[in-house]
Amino acid sequence: MSVTAAQGFEAAGVAVGLKSTGKPDVAVVVNRGPSQVAAAVFTTNRAKANPILWSEQVISDSTVTAVVLNSGGANCFTGSFGFQTTHQTAERAAELLGTSAGDVVVCSTGLIGTGDETFRAKVLRGVEEAVAALSSEGGDDAAHAIMTTDSKPKRSIVRRDGWTVGGMAKGAGMLAPGLATMLVVITTDADISAEMADRSLREATRVTFDRLDSDGCMSTNDQVTLLVSAASGIAPEPAAFTEALTEVCADLARQLQGDAEGASHDISIRVVGAATEEDAVTVGRSVARNNLFKAAIFGNDPNWGRVLAAIGTTDAAFDPYDVDVSFNGVRVCHAGGPDRPREDVDLTPRATDILIDLRVGDAAATILTNDLTHEYVHENSAYSS
Amino acid sequence: MSVTAAQGFEAAGVAVGLKSTGKPDVAVVVNRGPSQVAAAVFTTNRAKANPILWSEQVISDSTVTAVVLNSGGANCFTGSFGFQTTHQTAERAAELLGTSAGDVVVCSTGLIGTGDETFRAKVLRGVEEAVAALSSEGGDDAAHAIMTTDSKPKRSIVRRDGWTVGGMAKGAGMLAPGLATMLVVITTDADISAEMADRSLREATRVTFDRLDSDGCMSTNDQVTLLVSAASGIAPEPAAFTEALTEVCADLARQLQGDAEGASHDISIRVVGAATEEDAVTVGRSVARNNLFKAAIFGNDPNWGRVLAAIGTTDAAFDPYDVDVSFNGVRVCHAGGPDRPREDVDLTPRATDILIDLRVGDAAATILTNDLTHEYVHENSAYSS
Repeated sequence: MSVTAAQGFEAAGVAVGLKSTGKPDVAVVVNRGPSQVAAAVFTTNRAKANPILWSEQVISDSTVTAVVLNSGGANCFTGSFGFQTTHQTAERAAELLGTSAGDVVVCSTGLIGTGDETFRAKVLRGVEEAVAALSSEGGDDAAHAIMTTDSKPKRSIVRRDGWTVGGMAKGAGMLAPGLATMLVVITTDADISAEMADRSLREATRVTFDRLDSDGCMSTNDQVTLLVSAASGIAPEPAAFTEALTEVCADLARQLQGDAEGASHDISIRVVGAATEEDAVTVGRSVARNNLFKAAIFGNDPNWGRVLAAIGTTDAAFDPYDVDVSFNGVRVCHAGGPDRPREDVDLTPRATDILIDLRVGDAAATILTNDLTHEYVHENSAYSS
Repeated sequence: MSVTAAQGFEAAGVAVGLKSTGKPDVAVVVNRGPSQVAAAVFTTNRAKANPILWSEQVISDSTVTAVVLNSGGANCFTGSFGFQTTHQTAERAAELLGTSAGDVVVCSTGLIGTGDETFRAKVLRGVEEAVAALSSEGGDDAAHAIMTTDSKPKRSIVRRDGWTVGGMAKGAGMLAPGLATMLVVITTDADISAEMADRSLREATRVTFDRLDSDGCMSTNDQVTLLVSAASGIAPEPAAFTEALTEVCADLARQLQGDAEGASHDISIRVVGAATEEDAVTVGRSVARNNLFKAAIFGNDPNWGRVLAAIGTTDAAFDPYDVDVSFNGVRVCHAGGPDRPREDVDLTPRATDILIDLRVGDAAATILTNDLTHEYVHENSAYSS
């Protein structure tokens, strides 16, 4: 059900030939209200795709009626023609839905530089067909239509006492071929204010999607949009809403990690004993981005030296000779020296837990990443994406 | 000849079984004077190996008589026992050479965590055998003894009017298996002051080794040492000396890049039109560290979208929609949009030139890197290094 699990939403997914496979490639999600509150977060990459430039404007009044999403073309670095395509996409959807283009968010994913006249014509046709197919049962179709290299759709639903948060996602973090974009739409029928929607979304994404770092590569098209219908008539406490929203985001982030193209390990890097949460994130991210570490995990090698070397490049508070490192529960490094033998570590399961204890404070954070595999290199080199 | 090309130096390389292959693994370089001025630069990784901790002390008075180098073990994160091993190594060399341990630099390379009693015994025996074998013809033997995964020794000689700068290097940037360390020893018979040696070395390494970034992974053991004998009796102008030293460093850096394990392309990323040199370095390094870009080059794909996406993550001064990108002389992106067709680019040669014009200023810099290949993943995952 994904984005149509909550009351007040309709969705659809249709195929218009943007994908050479003929699979669905345009999705529309509509908020039937009564509220049309929305919030969104965007890629922090300064090289922003046209849909990002457009949607940043749309979200500025915290009101969104519909989201149009397409796979099969990023519409990034396609010049003013590309921006006009995004604008026309919003116009067409608004016309058909009886709303304003300024209340229609647009998301695109695919190859950078793709966005010619054929692309435009197909997207506009997709909007027409998807609007005609809108249904309160359409969440799954929409989740399928935004897939690119995803092997399966990502959906999540959290139900609370009378209200619901549901979401869909596409992408493999920032790992998959073609500089895969992460697109997420989350809907809720809880009755929350624009300010609370924005605050909750930022808090939820900060500890979930922002801590998924498959390969350190940031997309030009990433976007997470939250739509609020208030159709349940229930106004939860801010903390309760944020908790439910965070659960959906965390679930979707785990699904993105688990479907990362070419990966053979889902690595969770838990940093504890840090002076600050920021330090914990910095340390976890440095390890997550270290190719030597990532290749070692692919080879089932608990190479703690590479972990310490990665930590050593950060400015976090720690003493290199007082750090503990465990792989899957086996402490192989204690106080910056060898501890239990490497042979005790079993790295054959896909789920891999790295625990780093900096031993200087009480702060902690977890970064999710994947290993560096032959398949990753193959996927990202063999296709002109 | 490498480190014995300049007058006043002797060197040797011997095999003591640190390498399982039985190949030479301990080298000694001695400065016979009359000057014993020296300068050195070290890894900026906070996780420093014992030889780094030792050598940083030795260099503080700008006087070095000898350098002892070993492959087959990094002596990093080996605790106080490991530090004592480094200390004893310097003591043994000093005793045999009639100097002070405080004037003996030690360099090690190999697996982190390796540095037990067997390691110590072998290194000490290596010092004895190498000192006994010292010769003014020993530069090549020394260059071989410091090799780890290097397929060939790296040597460079620049001769000027009556004086010479020679050097040797090991490592494959920071790319090769086992968190390969870059060790470099450079000798000169020019008569230069300690202050000038330090300044020239920092200037030369800043634009050469510091701009070689094979895989973004920083070693715990990197060290570049310059030894000055003044045996030629000639005191060149500072600029002339720095120029010759930079030439040797650049030559060695190119050799390191060319021998990077698993690489199939030597990529030169030239950034021009930057507001500052620092911006140019930041942009070049961001592209050099982007796995998607590096995998695309392996696949002979001139994927300029990935270049722009990598640039977009930096804080350098530029407008994403006014950047030009060329691959091997073909401008495929102009002002942030498609220019000449990708098909015009030939990426089959190993030498790959990326030119990025930020179009905001006059500053420029070049970063050297390699592509991300199946072989890189294999080398760094298949062996427990």
